[in-house]
Amino acid sequence: MPHINLPDGFPGITAGFAFRPETAKPMRKLAEVLLRGPNTLTSGEREMIAAVVSSRNDCQFCQLSHSAAAAHQLSGDYDLVSAVTRDYLTAPIPAKLKALLSIAAKVPQGGKAVTSRDVERAKAEGATDTEIHDTVLIAAAFCMFNRYVDGLAMMTPADPQDYDAMGQRMARSGYLTPARA
Amino acid sequence: MPHINLPDGFPGITAGFAFRPETAKPMRKLAEVLLRGPNTLTSGEREMIAAVVSSRNDCQFCQLSHSAAAAHQLSGDYDLVSAVTRDYLTAPIPAKLKALLSIAAKVPQGGKAVTSRDVERAKAEGATDTEIHDTVLIAAAFCMFNRYVDGLAMMTPADPQDYDAMGQRMARSGYLTPARA
Repeated sequence: MPHINLPDGFPGITAGFAFRPETAKPMRKLAEVLLRGPNTLTSGEREMIAAVVSSRNDCQFCQLSHSAAAAHQLSGDYDLVSAVTRDYLTAPIPAKLKALLSIAAKVPQGGKAVTSRDVERAKAEGATDTEIHDTVLIAAAFCMFNRYVDGLAMMTPADPQDYDAMGQRMARSGYLTPARA
Repeated sequence: MPHINLPDGFPGITAGFAFRPETAKPMRKLAEVLLRGPNTLTSGEREMIAAVVSSRNDCQFCQLSHSAAAAHQLSGDYDLVSAVTRDYLTAPIPAKLKALLSIAAKVPQGGKAVTSRDVERAKAEGATDTEIHDTVLIAAAFCMFNRYVDGLAMMTPADPQDYDAMGQRMARSGYLTPARA
């Protein structure tokens, strides 16, 4: 049960968004720019960064919903997304994305956990400054979203089908439109 | 030195904002709503929550700038702000604010660190659902801002005078207007 009286019927973070539209608006906008705005990283890659960070923060709602969004961005390839959230170093993804995920996975511990060496390795694999910037900021933003969801104990649906439908909606329509209960 | 090539002459997070205006805009808007929007918590109280969370995340730039902003919201009372960031439980502040700070100070560890008991204690001291929501979200947002600053190793000014001037500007003019180098 949520720690405060949130509107019924909204899964996860959408309950917080419905409770407080004033803060929802910039948070939705930030997710849209980071995960779906113009970028040399694909939306599938960015959703996988979000899913890995959410798994490191042990936020089940965000991990499952953004894994589903990543899969829907990748023609339904749930196997690839599972391989990445389980162990991105052995997953069949490019070396540049592995280096970026190595940066992202450290951010939950604190910003200072990211070292010059981590960043140099990503640059050596071809990552641009903007890709490194966006990787750190996606990871930092999910440290916010994850803590917002679990810090208020928002409702986490138990049925995997719910996440597939959410992920499809997120991949198709994005983050700007408020959900309905 | 920052991990990536950020524009010169911008202190702390303002360098990231100048580098990537598309993500800066919703982040500035979120800070403005959370710290200065209509609220039953004063801006001074909310800036102290931001400063305490930043100190728990060991982000010197955010801790010093938001401590200065808090002091300027409190008629220059740096002593009170220092007492709160050092140990809010013994600081001369109301019991309700202590209970909210106890919630906020747990958020850096992870959302699940906030317990029903922490929330019940805040309610018993008179905190409303919206105050508890905003406390958790301010804390979660500073888990983002702090990690963004330190994850890219943004420049942290060494001169305390710089923070006083920044805090005065933040308290007077808010967060929406981009800084100049």
